Amino acid sequence: MTTTTARGERLARARKELEARGLDALLLGPSADLRYLTGHQAPPLERLTLLVLPAVGEARLVVPALEAPLARDHLGDLDLEVAAWQETDDPVALVRATLEAAGAADGRLGVGDQLWSTFLLRLQAALPAAGFVAASTVTRQLRMRKDPGEVEALARVAAAIDRVVDGLEGLRWAGRTELEVAGDIQAAIRDGHDEACFAIVGSGRNGASPHHVATGRVIRPGDAVVVDIGGRLDGYCSDTTRTLVVGEPPPGFLELYAVLHQAQLAGCAAVAPGVPAEAVDAACRQVIAAAGHGEHFIHRTGHGIGLEEHEHPYLVAGNREPLEPGMAFSVEPGIYLPGRFGARIEDIVVCTDQGGRRLNTTSRDLRVVDG
Amino acid sequence: MTTTTARGERLARARKELEARGLDALLLGPSADLRYLTGHQAPPLERLTLLVLPAVGEARLVVPALEAPLARDHLGDLDLEVAAWQETDDPVALVRATLEAAGAADGRLGVGDQLWSTFLLRLQAALPAAGFVAASTVTRQLRMRKDPGEVEALARVAAAIDRVVDGLEGLRWAGRTELEVAGDIQAAIRDGHDEACFAIVGSGRNGASPHHVATGRVIRPGDAVVVDIGGRLDGYCSDTTRTLVVGEPPPGFLELYAVLHQAQLAGCAAVAPGVPAEAVDAACRQVIAAAGHGEHFIHRTGHGIGLEEHEHPYLVAGNREPLEPGMAFSVEPGIYLPGRFGARIEDIVVCTDQGGRRLNTTSRDLRVVDG
Repeated sequence: MTTTTARGERLARARKELEARGLDALLLGPSADLRYLTGHQAPPLERLTLLVLPAVGEARLVVPALEAPLARDHLGDLDLEVAAWQETDDPVALVRATLEAAGAADGRLGVGDQLWSTFLLRLQAALPAAGFVAASTVTRQLRMRKDPGEVEALARVAAAIDRVVDGLEGLRWAGRTELEVAGDIQAAIRDGHDEACFAIVGSGRNGASPHHVATGRVIRPGDAVVVDIGGRLDGYCSDTTRTLVVGEPPPGFLELYAVLHQAQLAGCAAVAPGVPAEAVDAACRQVIAAAGHGEHFIHRTGHGIGLEEHEHPYLVAGNREPLEPGMAFSVEPGIYLPGRFGARIEDIVVCTDQGGRRLNTTSRDLRVVDG
Repeated sequence: MTTTTARGERLARARKELEARGLDALLLGPSADLRYLTGHQAPPLERLTLLVLPAVGEARLVVPALEAPLARDHLGDLDLEVAAWQETDDPVALVRATLEAAGAADGRLGVGDQLWSTFLLRLQAALPAAGFVAASTVTRQLRMRKDPGEVEALARVAAAIDRVVDGLEGLRWAGRTELEVAGDIQAAIRDGHDEACFAIVGSGRNGASPHHVATGRVIRPGDAVVVDIGGRLDGYCSDTTRTLVVGEPPPGFLELYAVLHQAQLAGCAAVAPGVPAEAVDAACRQVIAAAGHGEHFIHRTGHGIGLEEHEHPYLVAGNREPLEPGMAFSVEPGIYLPGRFGARIEDIVVCTDQGGRRLNTTSRDLRVVDG
């Protein structure tokens, strides 16, 4: 739990960032943004929960009455008024009144990226003179740069998922379905996390689909298997990928894996303050393209990670944003041969003054399990 | 899995409903709406997935390239074009082109209620001549009335959660924390469902907060405990609440529970075709108010249920929508005494020609467990 003082400072920094970017208020629904700033972990519901944070003037957390006890519990001593609305009240009127009191009802409003459209449409109808932009223009500036406590939390959850990776070779693979193996892995994730978030097990040709969902396909000797897993601990996310082969690797796989391994090393080595995010992507892509597999690396190299599994910064061509100490992200090149197999290696890396610090520390060598 | 034919018919009905309501297209992101119409279960991601369904003209499912294999797998034989976009493409341009081809780019567009605001803002910027309304004005008309297969799925998942309820009295309560008990319950839910969605365990004064999240509070003899649990099986949700007392009930609790029980019976009995949704709420509220607890029933009586835990219709004052055969919803009055205890009874009920059919069939009598 982030201290009251730290959350108060984050709210103050968000207000400053609003002013710096010419915005008049933030409107944040249930989201990592809301949790980051206030500590309130609100479930996304059809009843509106919304933090109204003007650049200047009184902030309010608008919540449905039956969520108010939970909200107050999460806020603790944080200096933030909770405005509870009853089942037959109009919460949007409460939001408008709060903005009017702050003189921001006709201003530029940053609306939470993940706020449901049904709420944005109602806000737009109730605030016809306002302009709306994505709140992440402000909140990413805060959340992208992890403070030491957050880096520590990411290292802890990375260690937890690494223990699951260490256990992979002890599982039975051949003769079982992807779903069965994924079930075992999810149980292992739950053991060391508060929550298992995903367990991709893509065997054989299924490994060529990066976001494959585990199926009833039976894993066989000679399969390559992509295992991409993650969970959440104390709010922060883990995410790592390792690739295994069951018994003898399929023809051509060892050469492909060697290229991928070099690419991932190159990506990690490219991380340093001041380097544009897209340069890490280019470092991976160059190695893979030089080996003739450019067209088989069909996704960006990585995504930021923190309270969300995917957040800013994104390591993708076109993102010239310079890396800074405290930024945390995945480095996860992959090579996918449709109809045959795929491979991916993924670690979470934090940018430090000394370069990239890898939080996942398990071996990146190809793992061979009994066929 | 809904058959290709059924999904094709749903898409056709959605188009008719669009025309009937003067809308030109639906724009649906990852959601129960999307799953209902197409079978695609898309994870909500920062990469845009969007079904563009014009009232007249060609429909398209716009998906990130790396989600395309999963989307095609989910669609199966459904006659729907998949338009995959690459990491550096602009998916909103694809959406606009699809709408332009259908002559709908300057029309009235129904945007998925849960589509992230960041996408709606980009759509609004790219389609300045279009008007946007909530898609549920159309989709609720389809999804509210469950077909026989859906009612069957809801009955199956209700039976699964009822088995968990049957096991509650076998758990150890006194001396354990809410979190420990909730952990046991979640494991039991996973046993008979594809997924455990929630397990509210509100003991003692915590029971007075309807959406309480299980905490480290140790359950003691003399506590009333509200247990509100649900999961998902074959896509459909369960949701039931029972209240227990550990050993001797606290003073005043038996009388309060008797009132609540009568109220819940009255709510279930009020269900019939043609009855306004709010009348079920009123039937419960009347019993509770007559006993002097009106101010302690602080939420609406119920919510629709199906592919989502909470969906239309809502049983709340002001909703005059008449109930129809096939509508499925919770009937869940509660009474909450702040600082002391709470109680709630919840069943899922389907409206039939013969009145309400209760899908949860466990006893509504107060359960007493060892103190």
